[in-house]
Amino acid sequence: MDYKYLNDNITPDYLKGLNSKDRAALCAELREKIISTVSTNGGHLASNLGTVELTVALLSVFDYKKDKIVFDVGHQSYSYKLLTGRFSKFDTLRQKGGISGFPRRSESPYDVFDTGHSSTSISAAVGMARARDLKGDDDYVVAIIGDGAMTGGLAYEALNDLGHAGNKMTVILNDNEMSIDKNVGGMSRYLKNLRISSGYISAKRNTENFIGKNLPIIGKPLVKLIMSVKNFFRFLVNKQVPSMFEDLGLLYYGPIDGHDTQALINALNAVKDLGKPVLLHICTKKGKGYSFAEQNPSDYHGVGPFDKDKGVASANKLTYTSAFSGAVTDLAAKNKNIVAISAAMAQGTGLDRFAHKYPDRFFDCGIAEEHAVTMAAGMAVSGFTPVVAIYSSFLQRAYDQIIHDVSFMNNHVVFAVDRSGFVGNDGHTHNGLYDITYLNSVPGMTLLSPRDYSDLRNCLDYAVNVCEGPCAVRYPRGSSVFEDSPVLYEQKEDLIKPHMSEDNGEDFVIVSCGTIAHECDEAVKELKNKGLKGKHINLTLVSPIPVKQILDMCGKARKIYTVEEGVISGGMGEALCGLVSAYDPSYNVRVFAVENPMIRAGSVKQQLEEAGLDAASLRRRISEDLLT
Amino acid sequence: MDYKYLNDNITPDYLKGLNSKDRAALCAELREKIISTVSTNGGHLASNLGTVELTVALLSVFDYKKDKIVFDVGHQSYSYKLLTGRFSKFDTLRQKGGISGFPRRSESPYDVFDTGHSSTSISAAVGMARARDLKGDDDYVVAIIGDGAMTGGLAYEALNDLGHAGNKMTVILNDNEMSIDKNVGGMSRYLKNLRISSGYISAKRNTENFIGKNLPIIGKPLVKLIMSVKNFFRFLVNKQVPSMFEDLGLLYYGPIDGHDTQALINALNAVKDLGKPVLLHICTKKGKGYSFAEQNPSDYHGVGPFDKDKGVASANKLTYTSAFSGAVTDLAAKNKNIVAISAAMAQGTGLDRFAHKYPDRFFDCGIAEEHAVTMAAGMAVSGFTPVVAIYSSFLQRAYDQIIHDVSFMNNHVVFAVDRSGFVGNDGHTHNGLYDITYLNSVPGMTLLSPRDYSDLRNCLDYAVNVCEGPCAVRYPRGSSVFEDSPVLYEQKEDLIKPHMSEDNGEDFVIVSCGTIAHECDEAVKELKNKGLKGKHINLTLVSPIPVKQILDMCGKARKIYTVEEGVISGGMGEALCGLVSAYDPSYNVRVFAVENPMIRAGSVKQQLEEAGLDAASLRRRISEDLLT
Repeated sequence: MDYKYLNDNITPDYLKGLNSKDRAALCAELREKIISTVSTNGGHLASNLGTVELTVALLSVFDYKKDKIVFDVGHQSYSYKLLTGRFSKFDTLRQKGGISGFPRRSESPYDVFDTGHSSTSISAAVGMARARDLKGDDDYVVAIIGDGAMTGGLAYEALNDLGHAGNKMTVILNDNEMSIDKNVGGMSRYLKNLRISSGYISAKRNTENFIGKNLPIIGKPLVKLIMSVKNFFRFLVNKQVPSMFEDLGLLYYGPIDGHDTQALINALNAVKDLGKPVLLHICTKKGKGYSFAEQNPSDYHGVGPFDKDKGVASANKLTYTSAFSGAVTDLAAKNKNIVAISAAMAQGTGLDRFAHKYPDRFFDCGIAEEHAVTMAAGMAVSGFTPVVAIYSSFLQRAYDQIIHDVSFMNNHVVFAVDRSGFVGNDGHTHNGLYDITYLNSVPGMTLLSPRDYSDLRNCLDYAVNVCEGPCAVRYPRGSSVFEDSPVLYEQKEDLIKPHMSEDNGEDFVIVSCGTIAHECDEAVKELKNKGLKGKHINLTLVSPIPVKQILDMCGKARKIYTVEEGVISGGMGEALCGLVSAYDPSYNVRVFAVENPMIRAGSVKQQLEEAGLDAASLRRRISEDLLT
Repeated sequence: MDYKYLNDNITPDYLKGLNSKDRAALCAELREKIISTVSTNGGHLASNLGTVELTVALLSVFDYKKDKIVFDVGHQSYSYKLLTGRFSKFDTLRQKGGISGFPRRSESPYDVFDTGHSSTSISAAVGMARARDLKGDDDYVVAIIGDGAMTGGLAYEALNDLGHAGNKMTVILNDNEMSIDKNVGGMSRYLKNLRISSGYISAKRNTENFIGKNLPIIGKPLVKLIMSVKNFFRFLVNKQVPSMFEDLGLLYYGPIDGHDTQALINALNAVKDLGKPVLLHICTKKGKGYSFAEQNPSDYHGVGPFDKDKGVASANKLTYTSAFSGAVTDLAAKNKNIVAISAAMAQGTGLDRFAHKYPDRFFDCGIAEEHAVTMAAGMAVSGFTPVVAIYSSFLQRAYDQIIHDVSFMNNHVVFAVDRSGFVGNDGHTHNGLYDITYLNSVPGMTLLSPRDYSDLRNCLDYAVNVCEGPCAVRYPRGSSVFEDSPVLYEQKEDLIKPHMSEDNGEDFVIVSCGTIAHECDEAVKELKNKGLKGKHINLTLVSPIPVKQILDMCGKARKIYTVEEGVISGGMGEALCGLVSAYDPSYNVRVFAVENPMIRAGSVKQQLEEAGLDAASLRRRISEDLLT
């Protein structure tokens, strides 16, 4: 397609000068470009389609070269990227060396803050507004946050601080009634009431008529005066607007139709001169402008490549997530104590199946990992066995709660840690490279890292029915390279014994954990062809690490290479090294793990190569070490 | 003193049967016992004096053998402990083997949830209420949370979930206008407005008159009916009550005078049959009944032993905290980019001095560690150098924000990590034993662990003026055993070089970090007397660990013992072990760190002994290892 408006040299002045017809055409081009790129590369679709008009409005009012626009999570920043000099590179979206799917300071001076995790935007923006006011600068700061992200406590902490501090900035609450799944919680209901009680269409029209038409006449100072009267908008809509955000000290303005560019521009022009913190409530539709996505926004949150004329095909391929999904639901049939807890990711974690079958035993806490964990601890002290399913990089948020509320009381809570290791195209903010470290450090934690589907099912059984105290099962995104061949054990303890995966000799031993087993098997086989005969021991139980069993399995070998998909510090390798060193100094352990966790987007295979942890790299590193 | 009411055998029925005169006398005894015990043992005074009447009221309405009462933080649970079977043991408060200063399930079946960190109570209580409703039980659940703890995002996440879920329980908001310091934030202002606008004394009287007098006549079903009408209390006070909590889906009731036991009993009786979540807002005075504490509640939050007739003496003793306090304030005079950030602990962290001198450059974010860190990142991208001072065990809360918002952008944020290592009488929930682990795992983190005051000042200078990217300085509670003798360096890089602290020979080397240097020096000296001649190398720079410099300093010694005040997993010892193993397998490293982080309250000295990390234990462990 030929693009008439989109190019790499769009200036702030150009955007400010567009008329409404041009803006509509620009929005259409943005949608077209987003749909065609995401259908080719995969990416976040529904959220980006929902913020096209908002982004055009923001850049029609604010100067992207000076003002600071902070996107929460950042999975809605594609339009912003396309309008700030990255149109011609946009085809590289989420590819190795290409444009990131999230804002990145390293990519553009106009990406003012890196994001990826939820609910950080208001905090970051408050910091920027404070910095501006300390320096006496006059740039404007805007945070754009979804109603889903608003369920995260971090957002509330920031609003609480902002309401007190009073720095000039705007929080745009992008209300689409969704997290990735349907949004939950009291805040969600409150926003719904706001939408209904203030009848936002008429409010929008009144505001538009009043400000849009009168702005040139009455002039900015008068608007400023009028707007600073707290009840101005209430007056306009002639209704009592509930006051939750105003209770916290922000001016509340809205709701506004988030797909009406002119209304958005009017509203932004109105709030930007108020000199106070404002919460601007806009209503958008996830997936707007692409019918498949409008109808099923959850299915179009993060997608792989698809046929844009046919929509996303339903995926029936077995994945670690779906294996977990089936296993936890099956276990729940036999063990009535199991309850399942999600932090706004029922579909992403596969708990939707559990929720469908056992609605009374499923709890979605919102994007609130800390609360999900402490709430689980509350259920555990009451006799239930909560299975808390949270992605590895998001569970980092609950590190203190895992220690303080789960571990210290030895509460039996099972963590299903999905997306551990490299995650591919979402990039470094989403990689699950820290879980071994932070979970290993938790007192009494049993950490299991299954190598295939069967192992995952067995681990979950062990975690739920054998373990006491905190237990975590970590498994990666995507599918296994191993066939799904169920392995049954007579003794539950056998489930978690170290597994001799290859056994060719005693020149060396690889000790790995989890699904990187495949790369290690390959490396050992290839090294055999070079005359280096080694073993590969794959651990299911990572912590407490079964050091004696491992050393018994080493035979006469004294050279151990540890391989894991996680950071070095505090990982499995360091733990084994420390224990082996005390146990028998004749062994020598070398740790192969992720030295540079900043590895950017690409396929998981590319990320493993870059980390030197794929089969070829392991073969090279081990042969270099042994032969020199 | 003879106690007429307090004993170890107080039953729920006894408490329910007391008349108002008896209750007043009981409250007086509780105050007396708390003041006399805390003045002898140290502990939390102001918060406990504020909740005497509340606790008596709670136990007059609820059955502590069946119902669940969850104290947030738990530093206000002394009255509860005294009334639930722990009166005669109360003299052992916070001593080794004695009564904990916080609720502990291991101590009593009536402590239903362990606490210590802020803002967990509502989450835990929601879990208990859900568990009860799933099981079909009929116990009642109450969470007691201060207005300070309500600034934590975890509390908001829980309210958001609870408002949606609708389980029967009460959140008692204990509003004393304080965190440890004066409370901050929009919520604080909102609560103040609530107190003013609803005139809580008259509201209390109206409610008391209406419910107290009419309850026997109109009966429970009718009260239930009336109470379930959302506007009932608004009707009573004949005013419009702001609706923030009701917006989230809870019934709001209050404010009530939190020192009027009868009013509290009436209110609790009224809300407990509503079948819905209720927020009961009560107003208390920190330090109530002890004039010194009423006047200066911050000084009586956590105290050491004092003369109860004279009050707490002002402490002029130099501590690590006061050394930091002076150093950061001095550095700020020369470096205008420094801003300081606290999470509701200006006094505890020593930032009060900075705040007094540079009020515009000081930001108290509330009990909101996550927000404090991300907000700091927002200031860092805008050119400032934030110094974020948070205790080690509380900074655990911001692990994800340190990785995602500080490290990934290589933001220059300095973390002043007070209370690292053992903290003594507060016990295991407050020990700072995880910071080396979680900070070491952060990409690009520089971790400094000074051994004395001078080293601390130099580290802070280095962190602020030399470091780029994230940097943390960890230091313990209390005072140094070393004299304060300033050491000046010509080259800033020399500040962080490994320090040869003892050098007697090459039989072995101790590598330590931080203030445990003293114990290691002693051990090396004592071992010399036994004919074992070793060295002690103390690290200031813990991460990235300067392995080559360390090994160069070892000379011919090949046996290295690492000593640190933190957990084994992911600590300095494991890191050194992993690197040395790759660098030169002829060295052997043994890691001495905290094997059991559940070490309970006691003096720091006792905790070091129990961990086997005091000089005598180190001497014994090393001589056993070398001589066998």
